[in-house]
Amino acid sequence: MTVYGLDSSNGIAARLSRLLGDRYVMIETKTFPDGEVYIRVPEKPEGVAIAVVSTYAPQEKRLMQLLMTLEALGQWGTPIVAVIPYMAYARQDKRFLEGEPISARIVLSALESIGVDALVLVDVHQPHVVEEWFREPWRNVIPYKEVASYFRGILERPLVLAPDRGALERAKLVAGELGAPYDFLVKERDRVTGEVRVQPKSLSVEGRDVLIVDDIISTGGTMALAARNSLEAGARRVYAVCSHAVMVRGALDRLLAAGVEDVVATDTVPSPVSKISVAPSLAEAVKEVLGEIA
Amino acid sequence: MTVYGLDSSNGIAARLSRLLGDRYVMIETKTFPDGEVYIRVPEKPEGVAIAVVSTYAPQEKRLMQLLMTLEALGQWGTPIVAVIPYMAYARQDKRFLEGEPISARIVLSALESIGVDALVLVDVHQPHVVEEWFREPWRNVIPYKEVASYFRGILERPLVLAPDRGALERAKLVAGELGAPYDFLVKERDRVTGEVRVQPKSLSVEGRDVLIVDDIISTGGTMALAARNSLEAGARRVYAVCSHAVMVRGALDRLLAAGVEDVVATDTVPSPVSKISVAPSLAEAVKEVLGEIA
Repeated sequence: MTVYGLDSSNGIAARLSRLLGDRYVMIETKTFPDGEVYIRVPEKPEGVAIAVVSTYAPQEKRLMQLLMTLEALGQWGTPIVAVIPYMAYARQDKRFLEGEPISARIVLSALESIGVDALVLVDVHQPHVVEEWFREPWRNVIPYKEVASYFRGILERPLVLAPDRGALERAKLVAGELGAPYDFLVKERDRVTGEVRVQPKSLSVEGRDVLIVDDIISTGGTMALAARNSLEAGARRVYAVCSHAVMVRGALDRLLAAGVEDVVATDTVPSPVSKISVAPSLAEAVKEVLGEIA
Repeated sequence: MTVYGLDSSNGIAARLSRLLGDRYVMIETKTFPDGEVYIRVPEKPEGVAIAVVSTYAPQEKRLMQLLMTLEALGQWGTPIVAVIPYMAYARQDKRFLEGEPISARIVLSALESIGVDALVLVDVHQPHVVEEWFREPWRNVIPYKEVASYFRGILERPLVLAPDRGALERAKLVAGELGAPYDFLVKERDRVTGEVRVQPKSLSVEGRDVLIVDDIISTGGTMALAARNSLEAGARRVYAVCSHAVMVRGALDRLLAAGVEDVVATDTVPSPVSKISVAPSLAEAVKEVLGEIA
């Protein structure tokens, strides 16, 4: 096998190649004077080609680089596995309004039509969209082991919280590794003041180290509110962790100002808090899909 | 029919709707805080949907908007014609080096996989790439009638030149409309000084109004050299015309400084010289493909 990485890999490609015991090759990239991007695969694959391309901002440019990498690898006829640590447009996974596109379908259909034998993704917002629009073997990696491992020595009397019921499975996985209770947050609006507060559905945060676990931190608004309310309700400390540190509009400052002790993310999107590598879980998932396409 | 346009249309969508006698609808666009683009089709099509999206820089963003528009239009099940005045990545139409992608294939495969019933393009660098990678009906519009019409009252004793043999067909079409001779330019390197000069293969430019016709003006380097050499060889005036005014690295200044009387382009890419609308030829091509998908 040969593991290929672009400059957007942030170490994941090389880590993966070391975990898999394979060669790592960096894809050449440049931009033409008119703004079009260019890539070239400088060495042909030995056996299966593993292409690692994360598609954070500028998303469309990186998606084009990803598709170019897969198209170029196709010329040698060996099997190709695409590893996409952050898949852009995963959140536009249905028509919220009439006349809207399912943007995630565009990404998945383009991948399929260009020719890829398996797909490994990390913590997709709604994995059903992959099931629906991608017909080759795929895995959606939830890096709960890496997250739990990072927090094991840090948290005392941990309580793991999901920001909403839909995110509960992820919190449950982390809690299971930590041997901690878990719950999800519900919003309540005060009938007199109109103030919105969030609190765990059933459990108490009092005296607990709270770990809020989500897939993406974008503006961080909901997490900041949850942190503030948890501290008001007697939580000892509040930590926020996510897979994808998209972090827009001052998210990190917002969270720290709300009293969050620390914000931590995986390395799928580069940020000052992207301290946990997803490479170990990715390596396991790559081995699994290799078994299916062999 | 309903003609849809994005903000990159520069009038082509509305002109087309007027020529076809159809309704024009502007697609809503916005950008999310994380940089992802969003579109929404605000009104459903009456009959066939004609989507007009030009994909000049930022190319990948506009390609995504194009695919999103087609995906969104697909929800109503009516036939869809994509009109792409400028198709990005058309020039990366083969593997010039081992390890390179065929980027044009990526664009064409993505269009096909998302579902489009016909394609109308303007002056694609090498149309064979469309033949090879797109299986629905398509047309490659060469706007030679519009170009000839623009220059008919301007040129005296015209000679139409193609920058190279591969571009001769386009020059021949324009020359035919103007009733003018045509030729292509050949490069010659002076064996003593090493200086590169270009001149027509067979005909003389002396006393002629020279019209150099190409598909794209990018840096304008070859055209500037051709203009300078034509004027030195006794041409009366030199004009440059192209379909796509990509114009990078000071192309317009380079051409004017080389003595070009005027530089003119069609409206597929916005620029100060994009004075000729391709809408009439596009309308004819749309009618033709509608006949094939009916």
